[in-house]
Amino acid sequence: MTISDRSITLTPMPETILELGSSVQLADKVRQLGSTRAFLVVDPGVAAAGLTSAIEASLDAAGIEWSSFSGVDPNPTDANVDAGLDALRAFGSGVVVLIGGGSAMDCGKYLAIAGPNEGGGVEYAFCPQLDGNDQIDFATLMPPRLPTVDPYPTIAIPTTAGTASETNGGGLITDTTADRKLTFSHDGARPRVVLLDAQLTVGLPAGSTAACGMDVLTHAIEALTSTNDNPLSDGLALQAIRMVHTWLPRVLEEPANIEGRSQMLLASHLAGRAFSQGPLLGLVHAMGHPVSAVLHQPHGQTLATMLPHVMAFNLPVVADRYALVAQALGVADPAGTAEHNASAALAVVSALSSTVGTDRTLAELGATSDDLPRFVDQALADLIILTTPRYPTRAEVRGLYEAALDRPHT
Amino acid sequence: MTISDRSITLTPMPETILELGSSVQLADKVRQLGSTRAFLVVDPGVAAAGLTSAIEASLDAAGIEWSSFSGVDPNPTDANVDAGLDALRAFGSGVVVLIGGGSAMDCGKYLAIAGPNEGGGVEYAFCPQLDGNDQIDFATLMPPRLPTVDPYPTIAIPTTAGTASETNGGGLITDTTADRKLTFSHDGARPRVVLLDAQLTVGLPAGSTAACGMDVLTHAIEALTSTNDNPLSDGLALQAIRMVHTWLPRVLEEPANIEGRSQMLLASHLAGRAFSQGPLLGLVHAMGHPVSAVLHQPHGQTLATMLPHVMAFNLPVVADRYALVAQALGVADPAGTAEHNASAALAVVSALSSTVGTDRTLAELGATSDDLPRFVDQALADLIILTTPRYPTRAEVRGLYEAALDRPHT
Repeated sequence: MTISDRSITLTPMPETILELGSSVQLADKVRQLGSTRAFLVVDPGVAAAGLTSAIEASLDAAGIEWSSFSGVDPNPTDANVDAGLDALRAFGSGVVVLIGGGSAMDCGKYLAIAGPNEGGGVEYAFCPQLDGNDQIDFATLMPPRLPTVDPYPTIAIPTTAGTASETNGGGLITDTTADRKLTFSHDGARPRVVLLDAQLTVGLPAGSTAACGMDVLTHAIEALTSTNDNPLSDGLALQAIRMVHTWLPRVLEEPANIEGRSQMLLASHLAGRAFSQGPLLGLVHAMGHPVSAVLHQPHGQTLATMLPHVMAFNLPVVADRYALVAQALGVADPAGTAEHNASAALAVVSALSSTVGTDRTLAELGATSDDLPRFVDQALADLIILTTPRYPTRAEVRGLYEAALDRPHT
Repeated sequence: MTISDRSITLTPMPETILELGSSVQLADKVRQLGSTRAFLVVDPGVAAAGLTSAIEASLDAAGIEWSSFSGVDPNPTDANVDAGLDALRAFGSGVVVLIGGGSAMDCGKYLAIAGPNEGGGVEYAFCPQLDGNDQIDFATLMPPRLPTVDPYPTIAIPTTAGTASETNGGGLITDTTADRKLTFSHDGARPRVVLLDAQLTVGLPAGSTAACGMDVLTHAIEALTSTNDNPLSDGLALQAIRMVHTWLPRVLEEPANIEGRSQMLLASHLAGRAFSQGPLLGLVHAMGHPVSAVLHQPHGQTLATMLPHVMAFNLPVVADRYALVAQALGVADPAGTAEHNASAALAVVSALSSTVGTDRTLAELGATSDDLPRFVDQALADLIILTTPRYPTRAEVRGLYEAALDRPHT
């Protein structure tokens, strides 16, 4: 990858505080943004577990006027958005606070964009169609509605180590009329402040911990191999890979290991900073999204299912990049070829997925061969495919889904 | 290094644009900061080479009122500051634009801090003394004068790939009454925007290119081994190490290699982001500064001279970190011990210094054993020593200087 023939802009990232208990700094941070009002968008599981009570008490103590909305499904929908907009518009302006995993954060950012504007649903999302070559038709890209005023400022308190939605102003909302996940993005919705409080992640069940961890790993690998990577994102991606490899198995063995939870929460954030500063992602995400949308499977699990297959497909064009992954994983042979080390990296990734229990086939997630045509259509039309290093044909995408139907690894 | 027992704050970094010719975006960026006035602090060599004429023309074309000051020595002094303050205060308020290497950038940031306040010289710098244990006496830390109003906003256009002064609000000013480099720091002086225009670095002579490149490498290694490192800084440091290793020899072979110049400029910036987001630096810098201050030697060369000696001294306590350096350098044996791989890293660093011609002894820089007591005093009292991983005694610092007097390597 050369850099002198491009323009690379490194966008300022949020002020980020990693500290146990940092979530109760929320009131200070709302005031730092010049507001005394906060609209909390909270994952319902997080709310039910009582994880927000200390945060809410600290808002009350600080005299912050607040309201809370927790009607967010996993893979949040247009219906969630409309309910949230009713609540937000009734509350009025303020800082939108995102408390939860990717679902709550994505939904909250969308509310921050749409709230001060008109309309709702998925009107602010891209809904691209395919051109005659089975690639994104840019003429169909424009969202039905564009915001005319700036989003409300946001603050993020992630409660899973996975999506890193706190590092950007974009996300996904499911269009329930088509069971399709649509992308939205607005720089103004990127959180101004991120509070990384690993205490909030300790209670996450093993299955979610594993799936979210594989999401982190996928972010890092796709950022590193994106056609739009840059040296800053490369460095952060490799660091996140190193951390996931060391700490994901540990937190599954010892769920209350607070050092491991802290490392995974920061690994997620760093992988997010990697893909959010230029590279974006690639084919693993494009192929995982339809599986979530149609079968309502967790995002991270769908990625873990597709990751080894897509890595093997990409290997011929990104062997030098995967060789760097092998370095970070500690398995690179200094005398080995890039291809040799790349294969070693892929083997470690597959083994890690087995260790953490995400080595599940599409069939195990409930798919049949009847689902594949729809998956293929949606994957090819998913915006995130644009930066994949080996742009696939329809037949190749089909072949990858077929392989993943029955085999966890290549 | 554990992270769950600490509070880690990742400070927002400047908006950074890497692009050939990006320096002429200056006028837009001044306006983006809400100003129509710019005070340029320019390295005299850069000014003499005519490198600022396109920038100045673009300011004129955009109707930006500007003035320029270029009375900046290498290792800028209190006298430079006073002359610059006269010029800045005569010009009045505006954006302070830093154009040059570390000297111009450090001087410019100091002017941005002192300009809207009173006084000058080194009054805003720390001037710590030693306690009875030959360590920094914190009771002597407070600068004689503290700013009462915020610094002028700054924009940086680095013209060397070295100090990465564009990534923070601190720097060094030489107190000419004591021939001692003193540290200053103010978050408000950190550039809001950084324009990385590798075209401006192509004409840098080989000696300066090499010395600056070794500065980048030292930043990365000291950030990685700091007692206050964090995973984000680790990832950026390892990335910068990888880039210097690949590209520094290339730009010395082919000075006009624009890809190499771009890679080195970004490597410098990434290493700066590494040390400026928590870790700071360590003993190599603490021991290099006195050599610059007393013998007026280039900063990067003094670091290159001390680096192998300090690395060998630190190795017993940071072998695991140096083993990561070995990974990034592609020489880590997956089956080797941390110590084995750490030694391999040190060998590559020494060899790189020889390749680029910075393997010079203190004697070659003009030092004699008579200088050592003064070097030792200043090194022990240099603030940057605080985060070194193996805190040295006076005798150990003396021993390292003695070794470096006659031997380029350990």
